[in-house]
Amino acid sequence: MYLLHGKLTAKDGKADRLADMLLDASKLVSTAIGCRLYVIGKDENDLNSVYVTEIWDSKEDHDNSLKVESVRELIARVKPILGAQPTKGQELEILGGSGITI
Amino acid sequence: MYLLHGKLTAKDGKADRLADMLLDASKLVSTAIGCRLYVIGKDENDLNSVYVTEIWDSKEDHDNSLKVESVRELIARVKPILGAQPTKGQELEILGGSGITI
Repeated sequence: MYLLHGKLTAKDGKADRLADMLLDASKLVSTAIGCRLYVIGKDENDLNSVYVTEIWDSKEDHDNSLKVESVRELIARVKPILGAQPTKGQELEILGGSGITI
Repeated sequence: MYLLHGKLTAKDGKADRLADMLLDASKLVSTAIGCRLYVIGKDENDLNSVYVTEIWDSKEDHDNSLKVESVRELIARVKPILGAQPTKGQELEILGGSGITI
């Protein structure tokens, strides 16, 4: 099982819009093969940034989700409001735990 | 809703033991009030470290879980195998998403 924890940084004043778009993304991927978790978070000390924490059955399932047309369209709409190039998220192999069925 | 993403670093050779103890912790907290997610992860580029990604209904619920006797006992058993002082994890306010009921 694969966890990806990443950050996107919006242009000034656009963080709420970015968060809304990522909440839309969470709906798009909620039925994608292998998607276990896709949550949107905010750090009170970094108000221009929006975090996405995802758990997938495999990295391959995650990568395949990026090829879906509706997801690609959403990514294209997100890019103009980003204030910085997205950095590579942290990737983890999930060993187990509670809250998702492993 | 509150997300905490933290890292614990084991002494050399103790990372598997640390991961097993944290998997035990995930069982302990799985029935704790407000615990939505508690997963244990490994980074292939940082073999001495073990990551814990938690989602709770509130920070208060998380903090209360640390007062439970069985959790305190487990923390006491973890400390001797740590190779570094735990650093403060990343705290996020979860706005929404999929995979947990929000």
